Amino acid sequence: MTVTDDYLANNDTYASTFTGPLPLPPSKHVAVVACMDARLDVYRILGIHEGEAHVIRNAGGVVTDDTIRSLAISQRLLGTQEIILIHHTDCGMLTFTDDDFKRAIQEETGLKPPWAAEAFGDLAEDVRQSMRRIEGSPFVTKHASLRGFVFDVATGKLSEVTL
Amino acid sequence: MTVTDDYLANNDTYASTFTGPLPLPPSKHVAVVACMDARLDVYRILGIHEGEAHVIRNAGGVVTDDTIRSLAISQRLLGTQEIILIHHTDCGMLTFTDDDFKRAIQEETGLKPPWAAEAFGDLAEDVRQSMRRIEGSPFVTKHASLRGFVFDVATGKLSEVTL
Repeated sequence: MTVTDDYLANNDTYASTFTGPLPLPPSKHVAVVACMDARLDVYRILGIHEGEAHVIRNAGGVVTDDTIRSLAISQRLLGTQEIILIHHTDCGMLTFTDDDFKRAIQEETGLKPPWAAEAFGDLAEDVRQSMRRIEGSPFVTKHASLRGFVFDVATGKLSEVTL
Repeated sequence: MTVTDDYLANNDTYASTFTGPLPLPPSKHVAVVACMDARLDVYRILGIHEGEAHVIRNAGGVVTDDTIRSLAISQRLLGTQEIILIHHTDCGMLTFTDDDFKRAIQEETGLKPPWAAEAFGDLAEDVRQSMRRIEGSPFVTKHASLRGFVFDVATGKLSEVTL
């Protein structure tokens, strides 16, 4: 038995009380970009209900080309108008450097990843970097609100980061 | 008042009963890759508790270079060993083509996105494509389990897709 099997059993329980379907476009017109960290239950942290907001997540919650792609689709095809960025304390991205990570992979596999690992040394500064990447993108332009936050994994609280 | 402000008020309630912090590495050693769709509350769909699993999400739940980056960090630095891919019925990615989407952006902004939009025409086939991209990556090699599913937004149920 894998954990995947356990989760599939949980899905039977979930489906037994499920009521749907909801409409495709997010009803609150919000897109959240957050770290993939296991402690960030984004729907609970923000009190999001099903159907309200797109949730985009990757290692670090950083704004990459793929984040821009997702936000462009979110805004242009599905009408979202607010962006919420969430990094968090005790993030794994603070614990290594791009060079060391890519060198370790190269030493094991012989191949150096052609992408940036996107490690960072300062949480607030990387939230600002992510905000600036959105502001600098010609493809993500439809939002009326763009705000960034650091989630404290010790307290559950969000703290806003300003540019 | 924005929706972001409403969600921040919700966060006050969340933090008031929060108990933490949990450890950084996912306790169940699982990484989930899912679509950003607003109706996919991934933690509830799979019965995931905080701290158990990385959750990576983008438009479509497709495996892009950024997904590979996130999975490589998840596996190599934080010890995940199972991957669960989730696409879903009624997905926005089924409603357009890369060419049309990129042409619309080019006509409005003068700039054609240098990235693929990753639209697809067949859900199960794109789950398989995502599985094959992981199998073909030299950077994501540490998993003992890789399984893909389609979530039905009408019933709440996951259906497995096999290669």
